[in-house]
Amino acid sequence: MALLHQIRNRAGRGSATGVRLGIGDDCALLGVRPGEELAVTTDLSIAGRHFQLDWHPAESVGHRCLARGLSDLAAMGARPVAAFLSLGLPRQLTRSTGRARPWVDRFFDGLLALADAHRTPLAGGDLAESPIAVADIVLVGAVPRGRALLRSGARPGDLIYVTGTLGAAAAGLERLAQQRAAHPIPARFSKTLGDLLAPHLYPQPRIAQGLWLARRALASAALDLSDGLSTDLAHLCQESGVAAEVDAAALPVYRGATIEQALHGGEDYELLFTAPDSTRLPRAIAKLAVTPIGRILPRRAGRPQVALVTNKGKQPLEPQGWEHFS
Amino acid sequence: MALLHQIRNRAGRGSATGVRLGIGDDCALLGVRPGEELAVTTDLSIAGRHFQLDWHPAESVGHRCLARGLSDLAAMGARPVAAFLSLGLPRQLTRSTGRARPWVDRFFDGLLALADAHRTPLAGGDLAESPIAVADIVLVGAVPRGRALLRSGARPGDLIYVTGTLGAAAAGLERLAQQRAAHPIPARFSKTLGDLLAPHLYPQPRIAQGLWLARRALASAALDLSDGLSTDLAHLCQESGVAAEVDAAALPVYRGATIEQALHGGEDYELLFTAPDSTRLPRAIAKLAVTPIGRILPRRAGRPQVALVTNKGKQPLEPQGWEHFS
Repeated sequence: MALLHQIRNRAGRGSATGVRLGIGDDCALLGVRPGEELAVTTDLSIAGRHFQLDWHPAESVGHRCLARGLSDLAAMGARPVAAFLSLGLPRQLTRSTGRARPWVDRFFDGLLALADAHRTPLAGGDLAESPIAVADIVLVGAVPRGRALLRSGARPGDLIYVTGTLGAAAAGLERLAQQRAAHPIPARFSKTLGDLLAPHLYPQPRIAQGLWLARRALASAALDLSDGLSTDLAHLCQESGVAAEVDAAALPVYRGATIEQALHGGEDYELLFTAPDSTRLPRAIAKLAVTPIGRILPRRAGRPQVALVTNKGKQPLEPQGWEHFS
Repeated sequence: MALLHQIRNRAGRGSATGVRLGIGDDCALLGVRPGEELAVTTDLSIAGRHFQLDWHPAESVGHRCLARGLSDLAAMGARPVAAFLSLGLPRQLTRSTGRARPWVDRFFDGLLALADAHRTPLAGGDLAESPIAVADIVLVGAVPRGRALLRSGARPGDLIYVTGTLGAAAAGLERLAQQRAAHPIPARFSKTLGDLLAPHLYPQPRIAQGLWLARRALASAALDLSDGLSTDLAHLCQESGVAAEVDAAALPVYRGATIEQALHGGEDYELLFTAPDSTRLPRAIAKLAVTPIGRILPRRAGRPQVALVTNKGKQPLEPQGWEHFS
């Protein structure tokens, strides 16, 4: 089948040291180094829910699919070994329209560019016709045994850190919503809007920062900010059996974003991690700023799981981010 | 989220020796033994295409999703280490209707029963609301390095074998189609129809047979018959750079199936493998019959890739099985 052969040829690019056998057999074969364990994650993206065919560029849809999976590896401190993609597409997305290349080709442009940047070969997957576009990305990574960054290791007294800035993806989306109210569907983004939307359209998984933290065993817990700080920090507290408080004034809010966007906006794909108060951390890891934003507390009856500290005092910070079934 | 917690609790059952960390973190962590490599496969199932919500029992949909993945591991001779499931569902499939349990619960009944039978823990996945039901199953297996059964190893002179019988799934489906012509949608299958449909509804992946072949290094090539003999044998010839001929009289046709169903019917999930003529194979592997059905030939210009030998002579055997994009 033409599409499968084309993908196979394109996926052959890139560093494939861990891939002993790629697309074309019943399974791919992967090798890992002695003393490593495997990290595996899957992320399902569905048209109309995780992306919009009417305004997300196809390249962005491909990029974001892979970024979700790579970000999960980053959150564990794992190095990428291989990606797998199960893709269900309506037939028209596989066809050229006029001079334009097929949607699926541009989808792979975006996906494979990010894969190349992180030396992650596309080693297999599945392809089927589907009434709606769906893409399930699978990432296999490797991490030295016992060194993976888990959600469950945060302890009272630990400080809470985030990489980069927060709210950029949500701020871009809000600006787009405002523009769409005037012009229902932009055929092409203006340069200004494109720049504002870039953090949403092309988020950067923090692989280098995750590897840095895992190698030095400095973080007690970690996860990636995919659903939004208020939701993801609640997940970390749940898995660690602790509570947390966040200093509003300490948040590294993206320039142009609101504090609400920084607290609840999803898809920033920064890392959130904890480390004992005594741990000396640099101000930047792999050239990306690291900011302490709060601390881990014991869980107590009557205390909110996560609290926000402002100049008006403490208030509960309820999860208001992405819900997977809403 | 209630559904996720429920899956997490149910998936905790079963042997999980290779799973160091299961559902609940950014990734699952898996361990493999020294000297093993990993086999990874993904299979996407879409409502209306791979299964029908109006007549496939939910338990069968869950079983068949996992069976597709396990069968790919069987075809490589790999032992299952863990399964991952990305599931997109319309909301009504997650809800009880009257006294009936939710569709998704019955889906997991079927999937987890087969998982238990093959000691394959469900170690993670993703869950999202979706306008149509989609399920992507990911299987991770392990195989001693260099022992995996590939599609590419068949050589001229090798004999071609299949496990079990052929055409059972297609025969059941045809009978169902006849009944549906009279009664559009059966609310519940009769005992007779249920028995006839069992090979289609609950196919058995040939894990034990694949492991047996890989451990003894007896097969030169192998794949599983998911798309139908005519299509899958063409794939094997393509990957091995050879041609093949099949003896019609030798085919182990399922009792009640036609030779056409045995040649082109998909979803039997038997193994097709090749071995040198000099290799002595038993008549049964792990209690399942093994039948020689033809031989591998050199590829020559003007010769069909796959030919069928009958008492009327040789004729080309064109692939007429499942097409992933049709």
